[in-house]
Amino acid sequence: MLFKVEMDVRVPLDYDPARFEALKAAEKARFQELQRAGTWRHIWRVVGQYSNVSIFDVESNAQLHDLLTGLPLYPFMEVKVTALCRHPSSLHDDDR
Amino acid sequence: MLFKVEMDVRVPLDYDPARFEALKAAEKARFQELQRAGTWRHIWRVVGQYSNVSIFDVESNAQLHDLLTGLPLYPFMEVKVTALCRHPSSLHDDDR
Amino acid sequence: MLFKVEMDVRVPLDYDPARFEALKAAEKARFQELQRAGTWRHIWRVVGQYSNVSIFDVESNAQLHDLLTGLPLYPFMEVKVTALCRHPSSLHDDDR
Amino acid sequence: MLFKVEMDVRVPLDYDPARFEALKAAEKARFQELQRAGTWRHIWRVVGQYSNVSIFDVESNAQLHDLLTGLPLYPFMEVKVTALCRHPSSLHDDDR
Amino acid sequence: MLFKVEMDVRVPLDYDPARFEALKAAEKARFQELQRAGTWRHIWRVVGQYSNVSIFDVESNAQLHDLLTGLPLYPFMEVKVTALCRHPSSLHDDDR
Amino acid sequence: MLFKVEMDVRVPLDYDPARFEALKAAEKARFQELQRAGTWRHIWRVVGQYSNVSIFDVESNAQLHDLLTGLPLYPFMEVKVTALCRHPSSLHDDDR
Amino acid sequence: MLFKVEMDVRVPLDYDPARFEALKAAEKARFQELQRAGTWRHIWRVVGQYSNVSIFDVESNAQLHDLLTGLPLYPFMEVKVTALCRHPSSLHDDDR
Amino acid sequence: MLFKVEMDVRVPLDYDPARFEALKAAEKARFQELQRAGTWRHIWRVVGQYSNVSIFDVESNAQLHDLLTGLPLYPFMEVKVTALCRHPSSLHDDDR
Amino acid sequence: MLFKVEMDVRVPLDYDPARFEALKAAEKARFQELQRAGTWRHIWRVVGQYSNVSIFDVESNAQLHDLLTGLPLYPFMEVKVTALCRHPSSLHDDDR
Amino acid sequence: MLFKVEMDVRVPLDYDPARFEALKAAEKARFQELQRAGTWRHIWRVVGQYSNVSIFDVESNAQLHDLLTGLPLYPFMEVKVTALCRHPSSLHDDDR
Repeated sequence: MLFKVEMDVRVPLDYDPARFEALKAAEKARFQELQRAGTWRHIWRVVGQYSNVSIFDVESNAQLHDLLTGLPLYPFMEVKVTALCRHPSSLHDDDR
Repeated sequence: MLFKVEMDVRVPLDYDPARFEALKAAEKARFQELQRAGTWRHIWRVVGQYSNVSIFDVESNAQLHDLLTGLPLYPFMEVKVTALCRHPSSLHDDDR
Repeated sequence: MLFKVEMDVRVPLDYDPARFEALKAAEKARFQELQRAGTWRHIWRVVGQYSNVSIFDVESNAQLHDLLTGLPLYPFMEVKVTALCRHPSSLHDDDR
Repeated sequence: MLFKVEMDVRVPLDYDPARFEALKAAEKARFQELQRAGTWRHIWRVVGQYSNVSIFDVESNAQLHDLLTGLPLYPFMEVKVTALCRHPSSLHDDDR
Repeated sequence: MLFKVEMDVRVPLDYDPARFEALKAAEKARFQELQRAGTWRHIWRVVGQYSNVSIFDVESNAQLHDLLTGLPLYPFMEVKVTALCRHPSSLHDDDR
Repeated sequence: MLFKVEMDVRVPLDYDPARFEALKAAEKARFQELQRAGTWRHIWRVVGQYSNVSIFDVESNAQLHDLLTGLPLYPFMEVKVTALCRHPSSLHDDDR
Repeated sequence: MLFKVEMDVRVPLDYDPARFEALKAAEKARFQELQRAGTWRHIWRVVGQYSNVSIFDVESNAQLHDLLTGLPLYPFMEVKVTALCRHPSSLHDDDR
Repeated sequence: MLFKVEMDVRVPLDYDPARFEALKAAEKARFQELQRAGTWRHIWRVVGQYSNVSIFDVESNAQLHDLLTGLPLYPFMEVKVTALCRHPSSLHDDDR
Repeated sequence: MLFKVEMDVRVPLDYDPARFEALKAAEKARFQELQRAGTWRHIWRVVGQYSNVSIFDVESNAQLHDLLTGLPLYPFMEVKVTALCRHPSSLHDDDR
Repeated sequence: MLFKVEMDVRVPLDYDPARFEALKAAEKARFQELQRAGTWRHIWRVVGQYSNVSIFDVESNAQLHDLLTGLPLYPFMEVKVTALCRHPSSLHDDDR
């Protein structure tokens, strides 16, 4: 099942940079693991923001919740989840 | 260049159904033409809404403006455009 | 899978009352069919509003979309969908 | 009497984790006590958020106020309360 | 139990004045009946608006819902309901 | 003259509890003084919030401003003021 | 007592122009009567809007309500009322 | 040229009181200088808020910007600027 | 003096197309007259909207108000006006 | 391609002034470099705010993202990006 997830990252000005870089590296590794698994199907940067627009393909709401709240940068994020489904006009059966 | 476009369709309760069906058919045809051309890369329905989330891949802002305002259902739409770009963590060079 | 669905009904002041009553009867019949099937698990009135708060238990996002947009009163509704999941503290395995 | 209560938990990034874990444990114990009593009838997680949607069944507004403001995590919560009542179309006399 | 109810009346510019006056007279009669019963405890005009702030004292959420949705002017109203309770600092046991 | 005043209290998580209790006691004493004087005519708790809805009966806007900004908890409050007047349908000449 | 009143006028595209001109003339006459009386102390146009910002000097909330709701263009207005008082730093005792 | 300027002052709870009093004294002195010069034509307190509504009469947008951003309390302010002009119905040529 | 003006055009679905085309032609002629005069310095389309972002260079607030409210399409517009001034870092003395 | 970019700068009250001045100097140098290159085509101050309205002329969304997120003051900014295009009524082919 498909969900649009919008993640907006807010880092306090005085947060320790080294600690944040470590979290970013962990986030990237986790993202790539999920991208390879096909769960995190798409990710795009929003121009001018520390934000992304993502498409997740999961088996259940619970799986999505666990994935999102387990992300290394989750404590810095505002997250917005929107349930999607295939569009009837699409020529692609698997436009995911 | 990539853009997220969110289209929300509002049809007045007393709008002539036959006229609206004709516009919907024209919209579908135009959508599929643009999907085949690779310009309208993705489209998803938003669950419970007469709305879609789409990803466009265009050559310029002007091209996107002309495509959107020329859609048969455009006069019924609220449209929201967000400029996107490739995410640096993505494993896919062409995640569009 | 569980979703909270909030439906807010807006009827134009000059809408034909007989026609609206017929749609309400159809809505009620459809609701009870889905309630019996266990799909529309809960429904409550919001005090002072022509609105309800509902819990749906569906197999997929697509099923929920089809159910909602097929409701007889759908053209009069503002609908808000929120994906839910079981709460880890709950004593009930099937709190749905 | 039924109320929908939405609780959104915000934890400062630098809050002492041990202290927060103790509060969470107390919150869980209090929740289960109220769940067993039938007062906190339903609870669901909101996907991707540190938030829940709950249904309370209380004897009065005052009881609800005391329960909510007495929760161990209350100082971290944004709370939204909506008065509900039984829906006339429901087949269940006690859909609570 | 106490509730603050805010009612905002919107009358279309072209609504038949005689018909509206009849509804207003019915509304006033119904209001005074409820005021005498002690159910509609307080009402105040909001300066510059066709709106009121009211305090209701009811036995249940369901009673409040039935009272509000049965008002003659209800189809013209935006209604906002807020659950209240006695304030612990008040010197009056029955500040209702 | 009547005003609805809504006060929403926000206390930082790390504010010294003893200092806050002292301010609360001062607030309560000041409130009761104004309640006895008939200036602070009504106060109700908003269910689930650290907020109240109050009705003030003052001689002028300036008097209301001085009363509110002089409250011991004022620095912690978001305050919303709405000018009210007697409702023409009310049976009570002095519904204040 | 002083109030800031912001009036925003919305005229439907198909409203009869002659009828509206008559209302505008009546509004202007009423305004000038109140301006001469010192009640409508100031009025300014908001650049680019069919709106004004006004300062009223009235004896009571009730007087302000009656003045505003009796304006010929009132049915076309969105009105926002804010209670003001003299500023302690002002050099003018009667800055009204 | 006339502008409405709304200033909302937010002081952190733990800001040094002596330092803030010094800034307030400087603000008052600067205000009175501008009031005497006729630039800061009007100022009113908003009831219940640490806010004012002011009318400025300046020679240019740039002059207004320099005046506002140079105020001693500017770093504590949310500022909202609205361009105004004389109202055609006013009987006073110089209602400023 | 410089102002950013954002114009959002809303045309009712059933508005007579020929009448609207005539207004559009008049709007274009008026725009070009003001563009040649240097008053309407810049105009850009907002992608996907029937909206523009414009920069006006006028002698006074009153001149801007008269220009905007006199536009042929003004009755269809939502207009937002923001006062601007030269930026101190700019290398161009006349970046208007 | 053209974009409107609105930047709103928020500096914490207790941020080290010398450190902020150094960042401002770096921001100014970077701005002038981009202004000379024709990329940062226009910049204006918003009256009364620590904000600017800018027009960028870039080759791609990605270039704009890199420019904005690389600005020395970026960590202090709220940024809003709007895609623009040439207006068909403009007399200037290169109104950028």
